[in-house]
Amino acid sequence: MTSDPFFQPISGMDLPRFAGVPTFMRLPLVQPGHERFGDVEVGLIGVPWDSGTTNRPGPRHGPRQLRDASTMIRAQHGVTGLRPFDAAACADLGDVGPNPADIQDSMARITAFYEGVVAAGIRPLTAGGDHLTSLPVLRALGKAKPLGMVHFDSHTDLWDSYFNGQKFTHGTPFRRAVEEELLDPKRVVQIGIRGPMYDLEDRDFAKAVGIRIITVEEFHARGPEDVMAEAREIVGQEDTYVSYDIDFVDPTFAPGTGTPEIGGPNSYQALQVVRELAGLNIVGADMVEVSPPFDQSGGTAFLGVTIMFELLCAMLSK
Amino acid sequence: MTSDPFFQPISGMDLPRFAGVPTFMRLPLVQPGHERFGDVEVGLIGVPWDSGTTNRPGPRHGPRQLRDASTMIRAQHGVTGLRPFDAAACADLGDVGPNPADIQDSMARITAFYEGVVAAGIRPLTAGGDHLTSLPVLRALGKAKPLGMVHFDSHTDLWDSYFNGQKFTHGTPFRRAVEEELLDPKRVVQIGIRGPMYDLEDRDFAKAVGIRIITVEEFHARGPEDVMAEAREIVGQEDTYVSYDIDFVDPTFAPGTGTPEIGGPNSYQALQVVRELAGLNIVGADMVEVSPPFDQSGGTAFLGVTIMFELLCAMLSK
Amino acid sequence: MTSDPFFQPISGMDLPRFAGVPTFMRLPLVQPGHERFGDVEVGLIGVPWDSGTTNRPGPRHGPRQLRDASTMIRAQHGVTGLRPFDAAACADLGDVGPNPADIQDSMARITAFYEGVVAAGIRPLTAGGDHLTSLPVLRALGKAKPLGMVHFDSHTDLWDSYFNGQKFTHGTPFRRAVEEELLDPKRVVQIGIRGPMYDLEDRDFAKAVGIRIITVEEFHARGPEDVMAEAREIVGQEDTYVSYDIDFVDPTFAPGTGTPEIGGPNSYQALQVVRELAGLNIVGADMVEVSPPFDQSGGTAFLGVTIMFELLCAMLSK
Amino acid sequence: MTSDPFFQPISGMDLPRFAGVPTFMRLPLVQPGHERFGDVEVGLIGVPWDSGTTNRPGPRHGPRQLRDASTMIRAQHGVTGLRPFDAAACADLGDVGPNPADIQDSMARITAFYEGVVAAGIRPLTAGGDHLTSLPVLRALGKAKPLGMVHFDSHTDLWDSYFNGQKFTHGTPFRRAVEEELLDPKRVVQIGIRGPMYDLEDRDFAKAVGIRIITVEEFHARGPEDVMAEAREIVGQEDTYVSYDIDFVDPTFAPGTGTPEIGGPNSYQALQVVRELAGLNIVGADMVEVSPPFDQSGGTAFLGVTIMFELLCAMLSK
Amino acid sequence: MTSDPFFQPISGMDLPRFAGVPTFMRLPLVQPGHERFGDVEVGLIGVPWDSGTTNRPGPRHGPRQLRDASTMIRAQHGVTGLRPFDAAACADLGDVGPNPADIQDSMARITAFYEGVVAAGIRPLTAGGDHLTSLPVLRALGKAKPLGMVHFDSHTDLWDSYFNGQKFTHGTPFRRAVEEELLDPKRVVQIGIRGPMYDLEDRDFAKAVGIRIITVEEFHARGPEDVMAEAREIVGQEDTYVSYDIDFVDPTFAPGTGTPEIGGPNSYQALQVVRELAGLNIVGADMVEVSPPFDQSGGTAFLGVTIMFELLCAMLSK
Amino acid sequence: MTSDPFFQPISGMDLPRFAGVPTFMRLPLVQPGHERFGDVEVGLIGVPWDSGTTNRPGPRHGPRQLRDASTMIRAQHGVTGLRPFDAAACADLGDVGPNPADIQDSMARITAFYEGVVAAGIRPLTAGGDHLTSLPVLRALGKAKPLGMVHFDSHTDLWDSYFNGQKFTHGTPFRRAVEEELLDPKRVVQIGIRGPMYDLEDRDFAKAVGIRIITVEEFHARGPEDVMAEAREIVGQEDTYVSYDIDFVDPTFAPGTGTPEIGGPNSYQALQVVRELAGLNIVGADMVEVSPPFDQSGGTAFLGVTIMFELLCAMLSK
Repeated sequence: MTSDPFFQPISGMDLPRFAGVPTFMRLPLVQPGHERFGDVEVGLIGVPWDSGTTNRPGPRHGPRQLRDASTMIRAQHGVTGLRPFDAAACADLGDVGPNPADIQDSMARITAFYEGVVAAGIRPLTAGGDHLTSLPVLRALGKAKPLGMVHFDSHTDLWDSYFNGQKFTHGTPFRRAVEEELLDPKRVVQIGIRGPMYDLEDRDFAKAVGIRIITVEEFHARGPEDVMAEAREIVGQEDTYVSYDIDFVDPTFAPGTGTPEIGGPNSYQALQVVRELAGLNIVGADMVEVSPPFDQSGGTAFLGVTIMFELLCAMLSK
Repeated sequence: MTSDPFFQPISGMDLPRFAGVPTFMRLPLVQPGHERFGDVEVGLIGVPWDSGTTNRPGPRHGPRQLRDASTMIRAQHGVTGLRPFDAAACADLGDVGPNPADIQDSMARITAFYEGVVAAGIRPLTAGGDHLTSLPVLRALGKAKPLGMVHFDSHTDLWDSYFNGQKFTHGTPFRRAVEEELLDPKRVVQIGIRGPMYDLEDRDFAKAVGIRIITVEEFHARGPEDVMAEAREIVGQEDTYVSYDIDFVDPTFAPGTGTPEIGGPNSYQALQVVRELAGLNIVGADMVEVSPPFDQSGGTAFLGVTIMFELLCAMLSK
Repeated sequence: MTSDPFFQPISGMDLPRFAGVPTFMRLPLVQPGHERFGDVEVGLIGVPWDSGTTNRPGPRHGPRQLRDASTMIRAQHGVTGLRPFDAAACADLGDVGPNPADIQDSMARITAFYEGVVAAGIRPLTAGGDHLTSLPVLRALGKAKPLGMVHFDSHTDLWDSYFNGQKFTHGTPFRRAVEEELLDPKRVVQIGIRGPMYDLEDRDFAKAVGIRIITVEEFHARGPEDVMAEAREIVGQEDTYVSYDIDFVDPTFAPGTGTPEIGGPNSYQALQVVRELAGLNIVGADMVEVSPPFDQSGGTAFLGVTIMFELLCAMLSK
Repeated sequence: MTSDPFFQPISGMDLPRFAGVPTFMRLPLVQPGHERFGDVEVGLIGVPWDSGTTNRPGPRHGPRQLRDASTMIRAQHGVTGLRPFDAAACADLGDVGPNPADIQDSMARITAFYEGVVAAGIRPLTAGGDHLTSLPVLRALGKAKPLGMVHFDSHTDLWDSYFNGQKFTHGTPFRRAVEEELLDPKRVVQIGIRGPMYDLEDRDFAKAVGIRIITVEEFHARGPEDVMAEAREIVGQEDTYVSYDIDFVDPTFAPGTGTPEIGGPNSYQALQVVRELAGLNIVGADMVEVSPPFDQSGGTAFLGVTIMFELLCAMLSK
Repeated sequence: MTSDPFFQPISGMDLPRFAGVPTFMRLPLVQPGHERFGDVEVGLIGVPWDSGTTNRPGPRHGPRQLRDASTMIRAQHGVTGLRPFDAAACADLGDVGPNPADIQDSMARITAFYEGVVAAGIRPLTAGGDHLTSLPVLRALGKAKPLGMVHFDSHTDLWDSYFNGQKFTHGTPFRRAVEEELLDPKRVVQIGIRGPMYDLEDRDFAKAVGIRIITVEEFHARGPEDVMAEAREIVGQEDTYVSYDIDFVDPTFAPGTGTPEIGGPNSYQALQVVRELAGLNIVGADMVEVSPPFDQSGGTAFLGVTIMFELLCAMLSK
Repeated sequence: MTSDPFFQPISGMDLPRFAGVPTFMRLPLVQPGHERFGDVEVGLIGVPWDSGTTNRPGPRHGPRQLRDASTMIRAQHGVTGLRPFDAAACADLGDVGPNPADIQDSMARITAFYEGVVAAGIRPLTAGGDHLTSLPVLRALGKAKPLGMVHFDSHTDLWDSYFNGQKFTHGTPFRRAVEEELLDPKRVVQIGIRGPMYDLEDRDFAKAVGIRIITVEEFHARGPEDVMAEAREIVGQEDTYVSYDIDFVDPTFAPGTGTPEIGGPNSYQALQVVRELAGLNIVGADMVEVSPPFDQSGGTAFLGVTIMFELLCAMLSK
């Protein structure tokens, strides 16, 4: 709960939405070292990085476009009435600077940044970046104890390796995170999985370690409420991470992404599933794989930040 | 009912749809002063004007793009079988010329044009323009007696003012129209409202004067038929205006607009709600906020004119 | 059933999806005359031709864009687990070379190519091309005996003629095919028909010869499963052709087409209806009217090839 | 010379340029049969037709986009001060309706339309359409006596045939026009020819009949003034046609065309060459191959109509 | 001259160019009230405003897109070797918040902001906004004494009024500025003027008050060096403003603008003319009419900021 | 010299250019292992790889788009009359499969592929890929003896390292190649260098080792012929490599690239400089940094392949 005007975003009724240097949701920019850094409760962070992308690149441009689109967000949730920027001190913590030509160096930089965030008692809401981003983030957040995870995606990202042994790509982060005991696989649920498959190697792994996969066919058959009730039960009241790959949503609603799969949820459901997370104990969340070069209208970024607003409200609902 | 060949649109089986100077639905152009002006029963009018836009501009280009897309429309309704151009003498009345740099002058020009239309006994179907367009139109149509209104939108457009006192923007037309007694708030229903809010000032006003707001959550929960049954009941059999902001529809289906909100109805529902207006006493209707600069594929304009065709059929269903 | 490595597509885990000369689904290119032509069981064929288009052209560019997008397809069906490239020897048979300036010459070339395909015992899966493509294909496939047909489209394509007597356009193929006894009209079902109509001439013809039309309104009311159960019953276990016009799908999901109609099925339903064809005796299928110049994001092509993958699996489900 | 206000275009200072139904240069629409048809001196005509296109289609959409862009044109030439709409009665004569699926029928329709134009003493300025458009136009204009021609293009369009004997494509119009004695080859000059060639068949024909080809290399070496002085000498003071293929201009300046060739003149030179036609006896002119589907920014159409304005001024300079 | 690390931009060799919240040229954001405001020597300011636009709107989005593109700029001039961020303390002063629905209110806000800038001894480099932006800026800068001006544009912007008496549009700023004695017309030169004209009213005014107009034809004939030598002579060593409308450049190089005119300078000349300003006494400069909605590739914005970098270097060359 | 029909490309007069599986210039696909591999004299190779990109990614998609655009190329040079496909046996050798997530592994794969090409006596013409591509290629070609190089670019690509020590990026290949003695710096000329600079570190290196840098200012001042005469002299008659970064060309002509710089040569000059290479002893060449995600119109790819056609003709001119 904050009444500090410093942490209030600028209203579009005062300064038109198209004006001003775009920070996330028009919040103050409070980078590490800033005098108010210690007061931040929820930090919005950009990770402009896509070196783990095996297919069409672009998410390195995600944070900037998401910030731009985020100037369209207002201050109050339309359904619950929650005013997140009153509920907690929120700020834009800036971007983590990656090394685009070195995956290991970049992961080390990201983990170091998030260790600082965790140390300051800030809960992070990340704008990626491709899905490999989640791994170095989890290395900071799940270090103390394996986390549960609600994972929205059309892919499991549980593959062992690509291209003859490459262990770190955007198709492998959660395999690694389970192996590194950053995630508790029994408290992990993956929702929206679909599309033609290579083979069953990823699904076999999920089965072996106890990850629950809810395919999009099951999602469409049961409906969002029922599926999310199960998801809440799986993760329970322990610390939970939420990872949201924009390709969870049908590519017509979210064309700006690298590896789309036909037949996903629509934009209303894309928001609805996040609202159903209210009450969980969310220690961090991310929105990944938004790829501006494939998002000519900017609609994917706008959907992405609207989901981020829902994630923020979900984080603050408890 | 007309059998006058003058008022028949050109068929795409005779002249290909991409040929010819594009008028609305390939109808004859009958501007004020034309010898057949007095015979027109329903007039399609362009208002290329967006000076009330507080966010991303563009609707000034709407009428031209809507005319272009409208050459894809055919002569008979696919479900009801109604042939609107046989049912009434329809014509393109041309555009109202605005003054892009002066809001008050533009509003005066628009009201004057529509007074002429009303005087000639023509029912207007307007292609905007941003949503402020509805205000000067209502000043002509609702002058004699306050109208009921079915309003499709993601925003209430009931704000008092912007930017430190600015009373005339596309976020305020219906606040003004209620104040000016052009609308009877008890016969006004707003459908599809959604998205993050500034605060509750607009909704408090609605509540105070008796405007019924149906949020998109309620819309999705109850379904179009049920919601529209209530809408018909609210406006009843008195004179009613229909105002259709294209941002009622989900922005994936209608990206070409200035202030999109995620999670709206799909394109089928976008048509369905208009079909449910059959039998009402519609004295005029508008399609506003189509913004070509943000509609790279032209799909928004095509959706817009298909909705206009439905509006036309609804106007002629009684 | 094949275990021949020659007929296996290249995996995206070995060669990134963006690499390599793009053949359909990364299958081997086996044009007529190739030494393995006789071993092919299902042939994917491009027909880059749109001379029958009365409106916006472009499908002549369809096969190339569909091939490009098809490199995103993997080897196993996500729901049924079917591995089509193991189930049969599949290959890309290349394109039929049309004469863009002569409809009759082009149709003769196409029919000749498909006669060779039929003679080799290959079942064709065609990537058009506009919908007139289906006629010369049916002249090869339906020569021996009239076929049944499941036809997904927003238009009936049953018109007699355009532009004062033009008999061969993309609006007339199935009128001709019935007249030429290539199709058995009593075993033809058309699904998804919608939009403003010229008049009832096409529907009167359908009624007269016994073609079943399921409008999109009926489709949305009954749901895909129920509608497809009826479709299966209509075509029965005799030889059946499947013709899939991409404009069956709502234009928001498939903007890249020449004559869109608002209000169609979404992308999930677009796949679902094909899955419901499993068990039919499909002798050939086509995906037509994909028009790259109107598909700026490439999303229509990607949807198109995903449907083609479903069609392939349906062809191999029996 | 006209002072008739009927023939004056609407000024952008009165009605904003984005408003109004778009006719060519905001001139009155005077189709055959209109009471003022007989008073027109120069007629702007659309031929929305591209059935002769062997490569990427689209020019059928040219006239509409050119009309739209033409609302940006003003009333006075910036260099010479000529006011063309005062100098002669100019009007938009509408479009010739083609049959998109039949080349011969379309050519007959076009020639018939232009015979009516010639009979009325109107000089035509045509907006195509692909380059085959010029042939049926010349059949009306060059019927009485072969014309000279200044031809701006990157291709000679002098081929004998395509696709195994196809005589009528956009690569053959001037071969046919010479054979049909509509053009006097000794009075024909082709400027801007470039790009990789099939072989020398077209150039051999040019040499044999006496057509002068000025390649783009010669154009760049000598400069526009010198080249145009030669062009004027070649056609002399006899009746001359001007055919301007937008692909004369470098494709960066004019991307919206089907068969671009790298290395052409820039936009300034594109205008300059037309200004150098002043004083010739121009009986008609055309602007062809503008293809809106490949002109995402609309810049090609705007260049096209600016060239049309220059052509109009050149036609009126004598 | 500054060696203060606070005023150094972030290098793309440290933080990739796509990372970070985008300020102008990656300079520190120092808005009025900031503790370092008083130390700034050159301030880069955004004016996101286009209410004076009579044609296609969009420049209100200019500052944000220019900031984004400006992250591609590096620290040293490639030709002169000047390091502007070492030469003076430069900062991003943020945006002036306009009232999009009220021209007079917006102009008052802008003038007030610039009066503060002038009072602080900061020289402003403005990113518009449409060309009316220059007027309220000049009201602050030219208050004390009329300024000279080098004006790059395709239009004179010297009209008296539009739309029946509208005095404040983007076509009138310099007429007003001369009338208000903010500019000394004898020290004003306009370069690049071209395109079809309404009439001669603006040029007659220029002639009457002594403004020198150099048309693009003269520019191309004489070359940039010669023209700029004359320009330098006209403004002399007195205080001079530089106003750069992006439509000075040919629209192929700068499509993202509202009122393009064919035949302008190319991108190399666009930079060259600014380099020729070195040595003048420049008290302020602007880059206006960059319109992102018409700049799909972002190339216009990138050209715009490269010109801004040249303007900055020119301001610091003396 | 070859008269083998196997190596002849398919003519657009037989098969329309939009038809067929796109190989480079419609040549046969002859991958390593193919029975005709040993007969190839010039091999066109794709390297779909951009892991060295420090800024905007995308060149991994270059080869496919270049192949697609290359179907527009014909068989004979328009100026010299050379028929390259008669002059030598040319073939498309396919793509080298990179590992997108590992730079060293990818470089090893590329070098291995090119060693096979060199061993077979094939001269390679490469389609990249970002500019780091040139390094592993040179490791195969320059192994025996350091090569001379004509390098067209706006950047020197001679930096030591990025991001705190990263030695292998697209900004460093030629620093490495000189260090590894793959290039003889005294026989290296870099043409077109321009834009704002970080600092002088790269230019100091060039000076130290004897690389000749010709800035774009010098290029524009002296003209292409004069500059290229000096270039020919620098490399002499020894073995020479040609590396062509598409960002050599002005970004308006080649927007589809990651790190554009304003003010480069136009498209005509882009071809002209390659024609001036005739007579050199070219052992290999590349076209790099074509980035389809930033090339919405496809014009950059078309320019790229036209340059590749010129490179091919230059390679065969001796």
